[in-house]
Amino acid sequence: MPRYKLIVAYDGTDFHGWQKQCARDERRPPGAEPDRAAGGPLRTVQGVLEEAAGSVAHEPIDILGASRTDTGVHAVGQVAAFTCRRAFEPDRLSAALNARLPDDVRVRRVHLVDEDFCPVTEAIAKGYRYRIAHSRGLASTRPLFSRSTTFWTARTLDPVRMNEAARHLMGVHDFASFTRMHHSRRSTVRTVYNCLVAATGRHRLRIEISGDGFLYNMVRIIAGTLVDVGRGKIEPEAIDDIIAAADRRAAGPTLSPQGLCLMWVKLSPAGPACESCTSQPA
Amino acid sequence: MPRYKLIVAYDGTDFHGWQKQCARDERRPPGAEPDRAAGGPLRTVQGVLEEAAGSVAHEPIDILGASRTDTGVHAVGQVAAFTCRRAFEPDRLSAALNARLPDDVRVRRVHLVDEDFCPVTEAIAKGYRYRIAHSRGLASTRPLFSRSTTFWTARTLDPVRMNEAARHLMGVHDFASFTRMHHSRRSTVRTVYNCLVAATGRHRLRIEISGDGFLYNMVRIIAGTLVDVGRGKIEPEAIDDIIAAADRRAAGPTLSPQGLCLMWVKLSPAGPACESCTSQPA
Repeated sequence: MPRYKLIVAYDGTDFHGWQKQCARDERRPPGAEPDRAAGGPLRTVQGVLEEAAGSVAHEPIDILGASRTDTGVHAVGQVAAFTCRRAFEPDRLSAALNARLPDDVRVRRVHLVDEDFCPVTEAIAKGYRYRIAHSRGLASTRPLFSRSTTFWTARTLDPVRMNEAARHLMGVHDFASFTRMHHSRRSTVRTVYNCLVAATGRHRLRIEISGDGFLYNMVRIIAGTLVDVGRGKIEPEAIDDIIAAADRRAAGPTLSPQGLCLMWVKLSPAGPACESCTSQPA
Repeated sequence: MPRYKLIVAYDGTDFHGWQKQCARDERRPPGAEPDRAAGGPLRTVQGVLEEAAGSVAHEPIDILGASRTDTGVHAVGQVAAFTCRRAFEPDRLSAALNARLPDDVRVRRVHLVDEDFCPVTEAIAKGYRYRIAHSRGLASTRPLFSRSTTFWTARTLDPVRMNEAARHLMGVHDFASFTRMHHSRRSTVRTVYNCLVAATGRHRLRIEISGDGFLYNMVRIIAGTLVDVGRGKIEPEAIDDIIAAADRRAAGPTLSPQGLCLMWVKLSPAGPACESCTSQPA
């Protein structure tokens, strides 16, 4: 059966993140229909895409995404994949999906891929951007049209100091200080390939970071720690001690999700097989 | 009493335009309290600003704006003014207003002005921008993050042809073809100082227009007519005939408000007195 890879962009503002989930309702027996009165299923990007793809393919569709972005986080280069019985010309499938999708999700491109393609295990690198607007005192420079994609702080930040700190994050490190305390991951060692901070205007800057994988809230905690450097609360060199502490309390605050955007996912040319993908009807 | 001039920016998406108004409710006697069950007062930029200014000044405030922008239309350079008993340092007044304003309105700057300053009669020129995204067939290039500030058409437009047509609009003309049919204005003669169309990307363009004043829907009908030129439906020279017809049916469609933004208002150095301004408590 044909399998399709999608490059997906979305404005995360009105989504409860990427992954399908149901509103908390303890009274609802497992397997029962979602209870509308209790909120029903939450609106997620995966759910909206599966509905559109199901309507195009005339069969129930399971879509897998490379990155499970959180509530409010955006993407311009999410990678997802699904298999269906019908064969489509990729550009026509893209047009058919976009015609059915709400205006806060866009399919950028569709490719036909191998039956065992898995966007999770074949993702070898991911790139994120975190946008910040900053200005002390007056709130007149607070973002207006970009307020849903930019974090705002009423402090003046020094992007040069922040960029200096960013360099200390690059390389192979145990990033236990940069994830929530009771995480479920076995290893907290990750490789950050690149991390830089650049001014994009007098009161605007962006953090760009790429790595082989990111822990839960890792980019938002890194952004919060770099803001602490930028406002002069800690020195750029303190990053080394924060990493060494391997303790969430050593790092800065978790910044809000709206500044974060998944920019791209790099896939391995010949990735390993993945159980959850090969277990799809073939 | 001190009078303040404000430069105001707003995202028009969730506003019923600039001007204060009440939801239609024929049963409600004039002067009665707005009926919440019938919708109550509609959310307008003027209403939101008057509420913030009233809370800062501790007295009821009337705010006058240079341009009564329509529902859904944005502004980055609206000019407004109000008088109050208390004297404020302009930057502090700006900060106090922004602290009370919702996040879709920002006061960019505050100036102390003459007691008889009137943003309506002293406005000698206004500049608007209309943003368009265009692409034939595939909807994958449809705006995502800028969808509330950009009009989208599934046709390919030629910005060079559109810019040629734009030149025919410049000068003193009777713009009766470019306003709604049953308008209330005595004269439909206006001067367009400048009108240009520029590509801002492969699938993006903007129309920039300035003039001494604009009729109801004038910029949106001009944008619709320029789109007709851009898609090849009419020739750039046809603009002359459309102007000469002095008939709304001769021009193109009224494009949707979200592409439109009031960029700036130019004020006369020494403007004439205005009845509605000088009639404010002095």
